[in-house]
Amino acid sequence: MITKTLKEIAALIGGTVDGENVTITGFNGIKEAKSGDLTFLADRKYLPLASHTKASAIIVSEDIGKISGPSVIFVKDPAGSFSKVVETFLKADHYVERGIHSTAVIGDEVYLGQNVSVGPCAIIQKGARIGDDTIIHGGCFIGFRTTIGANCEIYSLVTIRECCQIGDCVIIHSGAVIGADGFGFQFSGGKHAKIPQVGIVRIEDDVEIGANTTIDRARLHETVIGAGTKIDNLVQIGHNVIIGKNCLILAQAGISGSVVIEDNVVIAGQVGIAGHLTIGKGAVIAAQSGVIRDVEPGAKVFGSPAKPHIQAKRMDISLQNLPEAMRIIRDVLKRVGDLESKLKP
Amino acid sequence: MITKTLKEIAALIGGTVDGENVTITGFNGIKEAKSGDLTFLADRKYLPLASHTKASAIIVSEDIGKISGPSVIFVKDPAGSFSKVVETFLKADHYVERGIHSTAVIGDEVYLGQNVSVGPCAIIQKGARIGDDTIIHGGCFIGFRTTIGANCEIYSLVTIRECCQIGDCVIIHSGAVIGADGFGFQFSGGKHAKIPQVGIVRIEDDVEIGANTTIDRARLHETVIGAGTKIDNLVQIGHNVIIGKNCLILAQAGISGSVVIEDNVVIAGQVGIAGHLTIGKGAVIAAQSGVIRDVEPGAKVFGSPAKPHIQAKRMDISLQNLPEAMRIIRDVLKRVGDLESKLKP
Amino acid sequence: MITKTLKEIAALIGGTVDGENVTITGFNGIKEAKSGDLTFLADRKYLPLASHTKASAIIVSEDIGKISGPSVIFVKDPAGSFSKVVETFLKADHYVERGIHSTAVIGDEVYLGQNVSVGPCAIIQKGARIGDDTIIHGGCFIGFRTTIGANCEIYSLVTIRECCQIGDCVIIHSGAVIGADGFGFQFSGGKHAKIPQVGIVRIEDDVEIGANTTIDRARLHETVIGAGTKIDNLVQIGHNVIIGKNCLILAQAGISGSVVIEDNVVIAGQVGIAGHLTIGKGAVIAAQSGVIRDVEPGAKVFGSPAKPHIQAKRMDISLQNLPEAMRIIRDVLKRVGDLESKLKP
Repeated sequence: MITKTLKEIAALIGGTVDGENVTITGFNGIKEAKSGDLTFLADRKYLPLASHTKASAIIVSEDIGKISGPSVIFVKDPAGSFSKVVETFLKADHYVERGIHSTAVIGDEVYLGQNVSVGPCAIIQKGARIGDDTIIHGGCFIGFRTTIGANCEIYSLVTIRECCQIGDCVIIHSGAVIGADGFGFQFSGGKHAKIPQVGIVRIEDDVEIGANTTIDRARLHETVIGAGTKIDNLVQIGHNVIIGKNCLILAQAGISGSVVIEDNVVIAGQVGIAGHLTIGKGAVIAAQSGVIRDVEPGAKVFGSPAKPHIQAKRMDISLQNLPEAMRIIRDVLKRVGDLESKLKP
Repeated sequence: MITKTLKEIAALIGGTVDGENVTITGFNGIKEAKSGDLTFLADRKYLPLASHTKASAIIVSEDIGKISGPSVIFVKDPAGSFSKVVETFLKADHYVERGIHSTAVIGDEVYLGQNVSVGPCAIIQKGARIGDDTIIHGGCFIGFRTTIGANCEIYSLVTIRECCQIGDCVIIHSGAVIGADGFGFQFSGGKHAKIPQVGIVRIEDDVEIGANTTIDRARLHETVIGAGTKIDNLVQIGHNVIIGKNCLILAQAGISGSVVIEDNVVIAGQVGIAGHLTIGKGAVIAAQSGVIRDVEPGAKVFGSPAKPHIQAKRMDISLQNLPEAMRIIRDVLKRVGDLESKLKP
Repeated sequence: MITKTLKEIAALIGGTVDGENVTITGFNGIKEAKSGDLTFLADRKYLPLASHTKASAIIVSEDIGKISGPSVIFVKDPAGSFSKVVETFLKADHYVERGIHSTAVIGDEVYLGQNVSVGPCAIIQKGARIGDDTIIHGGCFIGFRTTIGANCEIYSLVTIRECCQIGDCVIIHSGAVIGADGFGFQFSGGKHAKIPQVGIVRIEDDVEIGANTTIDRARLHETVIGAGTKIDNLVQIGHNVIIGKNCLILAQAGISGSVVIEDNVVIAGQVGIAGHLTIGKGAVIAAQSGVIRDVEPGAKVFGSPAKPHIQAKRMDISLQNLPEAMRIIRDVLKRVGDLESKLKP
């Protein structure tokens, strides 16, 4: 860890220091922090914690008054400023070995931009192109004629198969597989014959893809992940899926082939979406939902099969009352029988 | 891309050309196609699209009449013929470097058949055997004494651990792990003691296994994937599972230990199957189902817990009507009380 | 396989031999065993199988009398003794090449304990520390300053990113990714800005982690897996999750960020747990459950959303009777209407 004074940090984020110009050697949450750490106050409601933190300094909002205990930096956006400091510290603490490692295997006709790093035993196949400042960590496999933009970070043991296109500022975490064959078979003569999968995956700028996530190549054309979309770990994206911009897709969700997901959609963990559906702009799909119909723009759905949020909630409450209702039904049935007997002529 | 004339293509698939002998440089779906592309008409209902496609040529069924616009190849099976053309084109466009790469690590007593390819940094451990024409891509790990048949393709970064047996014409996608230890522990003295997992995984001919899928080795004997079965991405197959022939298992399904799946079963995405069950021949399990009882041959089940398809559907409809039913019950209850009061002596 | 006589095996586990001192060349379950195999009788109820097994010898409990057919070893704990024999055999059958492979890439300032093995193309980055007798298999990536304890086995193609801490006697299966970034973004200006994830993952002693499982590093502090906890394949553990001791987490379960799981919890397959919840000591969560509230110590829950086991079961039974109940409600409604008509003045 590199050490910085509180004043150096305040200068970085345009903040005002109140208290001793302490030396910062680490970062931590307000509860876990120890001496030497910098922390931050994300929300006013945690203010009581601020005086009791063991942190040496805390970043707080300008509209918060004096805090007893740690030194303080006042800024407009404590969370964003804290992130900026952490990132700057990290970059200073070079854990990435730069340059092309001697054990990397670079194929013929590969283009490497300026300042590209390629880690040990990484494999870059014939005709691939890697943009400026991009880091390919150890053990990755970049396929034939695949292109990767500038300022990307591809962590260890990622596979990107042939002819895929990755934009700028894309982060792909370890173990992800981009461009494996889609799951397409034609049943004939009692067997499943493979339908060739010869399309590609195209990933736009500023996308992040989680560890061990799989994104299949299109049958013929392209599977697309739109700019700014963030995908968590162990997610499955089928062939020919088209995902819009700035979506969030959480861990272990599965999107079947040819689904269209418009911009700003949120798909929570372990959701499943059946093939060929459209999920409208800004829709939110709750965790573990199973979507079997198109979802309207802005709609919130949950359940398996998924239903509009209010309907699903009402169904769940009714379901909780159901055993009691069953007893009432049996009771009413008997009482109606009794009444009928009494009224018999 | 290699270029071919329409007549060359028609000759390959035994079709009849109608229209100009255009040069084909790519393939695409009927909607996405552009000039130079070959496309196909899978189903009569899309016929209106055929005259508006930008493709230079289209493969259609013999019983379809003249089409205005693109050149046409008439064949018996448009989808199958199209796949054949695509595959032939692909093979012509050699993106796989053949031969044993200088950085591959081949252990002692390894047998490599004729025309085997082993990619960069692939590891083949002592005593393994690889059949003729099989391709092991870069970064794979093939364990001690594991055997792989002929004509297989093992994509980058696959692990196949020791002593497993893989048949002929098997495709394994990147990141799959074959033969990791089954999840077996004995609880004693407040701890989970590991039960040794010393069986193997045996995969028969013509199987395809998806990216990042995991298939555990048996405790003692073998986990089996039957011939012709196709498994999608991120699927979990537990130890001692026996899967029959020509099954389809979709993404993120999980099969617990010692389950028996008979031939021709279809298991949809995100299904879970509890341990030691039997799924009968030809059964179909709908997406996200949780199977906790044996499933009869030919049965269709869904839900969690899974129920016969018709029952589950009826339950879901009832459930949708439930909030309304609850109101009716409360109303009836009141009315019956009123009637009872009236009839009181 | 190494061969041993029955007497040698009996000596190893302190058992008494009855029958011929046969030579053992393999192990198998009581049904699958063939000549030369050793098997065992786990449970008295399988006793009828013992006389029909093709195994050459069988380990049984001391309180079981003479068995006709195979030779017998009498012991106190047949299952545990059998596991011990299998493990000893296995260790004798060295399939792990020991030592540091010439193609391993060991960074500067790396500390390797005594008798450490590092497989082909494994990458150990600057400043990492590996304890005595630990085995790192081929193709692994061990990050900057990560520490791994003694007696660990890290299978092929595992990633452990920078600065993580792994205890003693930890097993990590192929393809697992430890220490990828947590999924944390701040939405501002219409975009998801990345929140730096600079904490670590700390894994205590005697933990086992399944193939292709992902455990994210903390945002700032640490994600913790407690001693003795066993995690299956394809599990997702989010950032800042704290898991206690001796838990079992089955395949494809997903634990969202900042969840606290106390000791001895069992989480079945495909369970999802929402963020920031606490799962009390000894709780059991049934397969495919979706947990959206804290779970009390010792509680058993299932369903999505998860409910106490008894309530969920009662709800499921009511649900199965619901279509019939709906018919009764309609019938009662009509009959009450009839009664009301009759009583009208």
